[in-house]
Amino acid sequence: MSDIRFDIGSLHAAYRAGTGVAEVVDAVYARLAAADDPGIFIHLPDKRILLAAAAALGPFDPVAKPLWGIPFAVKDNIDVAGMPTTAACAEYTYWPDRDATVVARLKAAGALVVGKTNLDQFATGLVGVRTPWPIPRNAIDEDLVPGGSSSGSAVATARGIVSFALGTDTAGSGRIPAGLNNIVGLKPTVGALSTTGVVPACRTLDCVSVFALTVDDAFAVLSAASGFDPTDPYSKAVPTGPLGPRPPALTVGVPAAADRKFFGDASMQAGFEAALATLEGLGARLVEVPFGDFYATADLLYEGAWVSERYAAIRDFFEENEAALHPVTRKIIGGARNLSAADAFRGLYALQACKALLAPVIASVDLFCVPTAPTHYTIDAVLADPIATNSRLGTYTNFVNLLDMCGIAVPTSKRDDGLPMSVTLLAAAGRDTLTTALARDLHAASGLPLGATAWPQPGPQPAATPAGDGMIDLVVVGAHLSGMPLSCQLAELGAQFLRETRTAAAYRLYALAGQSVPKPGLIRVAEGGMPIDVEVWRLCHEAFGRFVAAIPAPLGIGTIELEDRSSAKGFLVETVGLLDASDISSFGGWRRFVGGKPIREGDEQSNRPPVISA
Amino acid sequence: MSDIRFDIGSLHAAYRAGTGVAEVVDAVYARLAAADDPGIFIHLPDKRILLAAAAALGPFDPVAKPLWGIPFAVKDNIDVAGMPTTAACAEYTYWPDRDATVVARLKAAGALVVGKTNLDQFATGLVGVRTPWPIPRNAIDEDLVPGGSSSGSAVATARGIVSFALGTDTAGSGRIPAGLNNIVGLKPTVGALSTTGVVPACRTLDCVSVFALTVDDAFAVLSAASGFDPTDPYSKAVPTGPLGPRPPALTVGVPAAADRKFFGDASMQAGFEAALATLEGLGARLVEVPFGDFYATADLLYEGAWVSERYAAIRDFFEENEAALHPVTRKIIGGARNLSAADAFRGLYALQACKALLAPVIASVDLFCVPTAPTHYTIDAVLADPIATNSRLGTYTNFVNLLDMCGIAVPTSKRDDGLPMSVTLLAAAGRDTLTTALARDLHAASGLPLGATAWPQPGPQPAATPAGDGMIDLVVVGAHLSGMPLSCQLAELGAQFLRETRTAAAYRLYALAGQSVPKPGLIRVAEGGMPIDVEVWRLCHEAFGRFVAAIPAPLGIGTIELEDRSSAKGFLVETVGLLDASDISSFGGWRRFVGGKPIREGDEQSNRPPVISA
Repeated sequence: MSDIRFDIGSLHAAYRAGTGVAEVVDAVYARLAAADDPGIFIHLPDKRILLAAAAALGPFDPVAKPLWGIPFAVKDNIDVAGMPTTAACAEYTYWPDRDATVVARLKAAGALVVGKTNLDQFATGLVGVRTPWPIPRNAIDEDLVPGGSSSGSAVATARGIVSFALGTDTAGSGRIPAGLNNIVGLKPTVGALSTTGVVPACRTLDCVSVFALTVDDAFAVLSAASGFDPTDPYSKAVPTGPLGPRPPALTVGVPAAADRKFFGDASMQAGFEAALATLEGLGARLVEVPFGDFYATADLLYEGAWVSERYAAIRDFFEENEAALHPVTRKIIGGARNLSAADAFRGLYALQACKALLAPVIASVDLFCVPTAPTHYTIDAVLADPIATNSRLGTYTNFVNLLDMCGIAVPTSKRDDGLPMSVTLLAAAGRDTLTTALARDLHAASGLPLGATAWPQPGPQPAATPAGDGMIDLVVVGAHLSGMPLSCQLAELGAQFLRETRTAAAYRLYALAGQSVPKPGLIRVAEGGMPIDVEVWRLCHEAFGRFVAAIPAPLGIGTIELEDRSSAKGFLVETVGLLDASDISSFGGWRRFVGGKPIREGDEQSNRPPVISA
Repeated sequence: MSDIRFDIGSLHAAYRAGTGVAEVVDAVYARLAAADDPGIFIHLPDKRILLAAAAALGPFDPVAKPLWGIPFAVKDNIDVAGMPTTAACAEYTYWPDRDATVVARLKAAGALVVGKTNLDQFATGLVGVRTPWPIPRNAIDEDLVPGGSSSGSAVATARGIVSFALGTDTAGSGRIPAGLNNIVGLKPTVGALSTTGVVPACRTLDCVSVFALTVDDAFAVLSAASGFDPTDPYSKAVPTGPLGPRPPALTVGVPAAADRKFFGDASMQAGFEAALATLEGLGARLVEVPFGDFYATADLLYEGAWVSERYAAIRDFFEENEAALHPVTRKIIGGARNLSAADAFRGLYALQACKALLAPVIASVDLFCVPTAPTHYTIDAVLADPIATNSRLGTYTNFVNLLDMCGIAVPTSKRDDGLPMSVTLLAAAGRDTLTTALARDLHAASGLPLGATAWPQPGPQPAATPAGDGMIDLVVVGAHLSGMPLSCQLAELGAQFLRETRTAAAYRLYALAGQSVPKPGLIRVAEGGMPIDVEVWRLCHEAFGRFVAAIPAPLGIGTIELEDRSSAKGFLVETVGLLDASDISSFGGWRRFVGGKPIREGDEQSNRPPVISA
């Protein structure tokens, strides 16, 4: 069988080196045959159809088509023209005549649809066993459930049958199966990927998700498929790239130790603690956060109003075909029949109260790290107690879309019992680049092979930073440095950290007097200047405009020369603002000044920097 | 009876001139007695209680208490500690032990609660006749309905019994009664005023509203009462001031002529067309907008899901006291009992689709102008057909909160039949200052007296700095001045000229050395500064970002103080860039320097300005 690695970088390298796309298509089918798992695909077209699509791609051109020749699978609640959509319910089958928006965009980027994958029926479940088709086998340990609802998509990716797969995620269906199959599961901000052409579960919460072998691959797919879609009323323009390095200092919220739930699974607890230690090793500052309100939010999802969205989505079909449904699915969705409109609104009010309670908590950190799942369940355990086990699996996932957060599940280790360990990084809507950039480093630190294959992680991708078209690089000097009090402003504007560097040796730095948030002022001088530590961030014009508009006197934005002779927009101070300010240039930077560590010899004696007097 | 005028400016002038607060309290009760309308108040405390509250205010201090000694009325679905809350249903009565947040804030600002006003029961209605109490009499024409649901609040204000009154607005209850009583009705962005302590109608849409005699008064009340309230999950921080002059060139969307609905009321149609002509006279550019999708949105409010919010708000009470409700109210709210949760979500999806359709339409103009009501109804007409007449009254109001728009109803004329004419200015959430600023000019142009009184409109209030909503004001000093070599850059970015002005007397101007296009540099100085001629332009954030990004060193963008003490973003120069520059401050501005015309006596001899040498 072909040994072509299917992560996108390796596969493109193979194409570049002369591998033909027919050979890749052969590998897809050979690996599927070798997996010998009839539960993965619900619909798999004849190989000739895939070969024809591949032949239509034209010559290899990864610039025009960033996903040229990349095979992918589609969860069978997402439309692909010419293939049936079943949502894992044969009686529900319809034949769409157009692709879902995301599928159309991925095809336009050169990706090749292999087939439609199995799922928990109507995307209701986190287990992957609620299907009339055979249950897809977990790619790592076949006793375990594959996870759901996007079961087939996750298994196909983990086994290297495809490079990536689309899932959907309402309660965790894009994260749990990733965690259970040692792959990456990117659940973007709701609205970032269009849901036009997707069978709804909860329309107010649904999103399309991406399973991939690497974090970079997941993000590349997101970038190719995202963008405002006027045909989806819930579509939003969400920043999705380019993916730069993460900011060096991040504050990561984690569930308070007393609030962590593992349901007795000591291996999962140990695995999570190890992941947190890795995060600290990467420079993250961990902050324990009480998690009761997050759990209370999660409980809303299956207790009340939102189940009725699932019923609303298929009401007519349900009423005429109740017997056709999987018994567990029927029980859950049918339970919403008797909920009143007043119940629905009471649920919405309860959610709004949770959102209001948690908004300051979410704003208090850059992002969160939680276990992807609190424990693993075997197929037997889930079949014995289908609803309680499912509910526990959603401990760390159910609240996420309700709170309009984005997330990415990423493998962090093999647990001490050999089963996969995964954490999910979560953040406020729109911070997809931040969670993804940190997930990349976490994955790299794990050293794990990809999915259920023996393929090693590819080396780090060249970090995108060529002069961002339509983007502005901004030099920050003080309170906007990562981890400083105002750095949240940059995150909220979707700014992306590029690098730490120093100015040219032509500046002096002052601690300004009379600021509510302590701030420095940087000023260029004709003589006696020195290099000052700074960070460079990247924003779009609109965000940059908002940022500049909000800067109070005596600070402003001018042009700053960096030590490598390049220059960028950045913070300067009016000379008149330096009255009563202290010259702290000897510290070499604001972070060192705040930390009390001068860098110039001889300055350590004097802790009192000189003051300019009026 | 006292002739003290109750608009806030006049009343504060009276206090300043020595009028005692007891005299004002006497006037309140005397005017109420003269009105001889038992339908206005549901609860009116003894005069001694008001006198005691007035006595507790301390000396007149309109700086610390901007509403010092201003009497106001409170719609009886808003809690005032120590007074019963009935929502116009005696059986529902409870005695709150704390003020609603808005009431507490207004009291803290020095305002005096007179009593609790009548309303359409449970704030369900736009007519003002659905109450077991006597129907408040329209203050302008007693054959007409008073409008509702905030009927008593509007009538009390129009009659000059109080300076202002609080209403609530879900479907138009803060606008329709204003339009029918020749007063101002400010319905802010949902969330700007806390709803903590307010009996809910539709919690996802409700807002507290302000009735006042003048636009400035309504905005002053909004400013005093607004601000984020952590006890209200729907609370938002919304900019509410200061209220500056409106931008000179505004694009105003109006319903396309074919889509205007007046139900045969030619006087209303003529009155609306006259108001549009006034708007054009004020410099507005009118754009006809198809209104079908707005009407379709409005239909959602009483057709489906949202009525069930009204039921959810009082479900237990309703089930136990159905007979206690006003028959029309019972019929409407009871109709929601059989709506399912799936129906509710289908309503939410339909709204989301309308929002998505209309978002670009709303973004295409600065604001909208619609009739406040399409026609007037007599009490007899409404009693004869209570639901259809009510529904028609909401033609131009029902869609507003659903689409998260803000609005202000403002009198524009007496119609040719002598009845009041009013239009409502509407805009996207957060643009309250914009709608209000234009409403002020419209009201002034009408020359109408205030409410049902003979009081003239007070003269214009001192205007503060324009708070361009979502826009940035940019101060330009040199090559970007109109007609100068770089002014085309501003035009290309869609910038809009606002005005010529001067900086505060705190700057010096230099002609920079070594520039390809001659440019000045403006710098703030601690001593020896002078005012410098500048122009102010307005750009959107994105254009501003592009503009700033393109500015070369040593120029940058900081904050510039203008001669009227306001400040705006604008050009500054780095001190280090002044080497070899010439101090041209004595010219007073770049245009004069280029023209060779110094403005200081004695400078004319020397055409060679002093040069700073390295």
